[in-house]
Amino acid sequence: MTDPVEFYFDFSSPYAYFAAHKIDDMVEGFGRTVDWKPMMLGAAMKVTSGLPLVKYPLKGDYCRADWDRLARFQELPWSMPENFPIATLAAARVFYWAWDQDHAKAKAFGWDCFTTFFGKGIDISSREQIGEIASRHGFSADDAIAATNDDVYKARVKDETEAAVEKGVFGSPFVIVDGEGFWGADRLWMVKRWLRAGGW
Amino acid sequence: MTDPVEFYFDFSSPYAYFAAHKIDDMVEGFGRTVDWKPMMLGAAMKVTSGLPLVKYPLKGDYCRADWDRLARFQELPWSMPENFPIATLAAARVFYWAWDQDHAKAKAFGWDCFTTFFGKGIDISSREQIGEIASRHGFSADDAIAATNDDVYKARVKDETEAAVEKGVFGSPFVIVDGEGFWGADRLWMVKRWLRAGGW
Repeated sequence: MTDPVEFYFDFSSPYAYFAAHKIDDMVEGFGRTVDWKPMMLGAAMKVTSGLPLVKYPLKGDYCRADWDRLARFQELPWSMPENFPIATLAAARVFYWAWDQDHAKAKAFGWDCFTTFFGKGIDISSREQIGEIASRHGFSADDAIAATNDDVYKARVKDETEAAVEKGVFGSPFVIVDGEGFWGADRLWMVKRWLRAGGW
Repeated sequence: MTDPVEFYFDFSSPYAYFAAHKIDDMVEGFGRTVDWKPMMLGAAMKVTSGLPLVKYPLKGDYCRADWDRLARFQELPWSMPENFPIATLAAARVFYWAWDQDHAKAKAFGWDCFTTFFGKGIDISSREQIGEIASRHGFSADDAIAATNDDVYKARVKDETEAAVEKGVFGSPFVIVDGEGFWGADRLWMVKRWLRAGGW
């Protein structure tokens, strides 16, 4: 089977940042491609009654420390954003708009959203910030800002989020390979095993 | 530092079953020992407002499928218990009672609790079942059953659970090495890295 591997995530998810850094290289080693699928994690969390990780006593503190050490392990820049979690509708809409033009450029834009937010600690919730990031990857900032208000991409993010929940996606990151779901940045070893064996 | 590595878990936790299978061998490879610390996960969950995994929509179904594939990966017997999750007070009290006599035998008893519950799908909430398991590891079934009602071990499980929550334990399994916490069966690679480097 050669359908693209689906990588579901919210741009406000630290564990998605850590997974996004690795997933394309890993999957491409098996001759497969990755479709990035930004979604609104908050909508999925309504289904599972989940809260943002940092809102939980104990678990919130653990996660903050865990992100810090994961960044050191993966040698990634890390600067915990002051405003967190944030609304990532603008980033997701512009991502799909960019994706419809050029997958590689869209991923470069998406990765830049992640590193701007988690690597530099800069809030990426505003359409202006998203426009500025888009402009670094061959897109017009004005066109990108317009896309954040485009009914097509408003609907796209909503539809992709609903489709994700229907497929069982309840967290970020969540990878689907040939219908099999893998939740969490810690499960890329399992994705790899699936890809190597073509199932089990 | 050579303090024992602490392995916190609830006997009703599938991910603890998967971690328990590996942790001693892994840690002993670094010349350290493991203290098994059964606790009442429900008490920790009150602090974090958590629910048993299978109670969550989507996540519950995902976890059931995940346990099945993890068992195949680790080549462990797996038989989802009909009654799940269960109260594991009897198992925890007898574990500490056994631990105070012989660490190795206590771990053998503890591992048998896990495999009886998750490998064979047999309910281990009754003190009679716990007595029977204890009798397979050099303990008197009657003495084990008596220990389930012993004020010393009632207090011990309560105290260990409270101490765990104070140390930040909010889930199962949870490993603490030299004060550093690692949550989840998926984080043994990180425990290993800590043990190898003596921190980071």
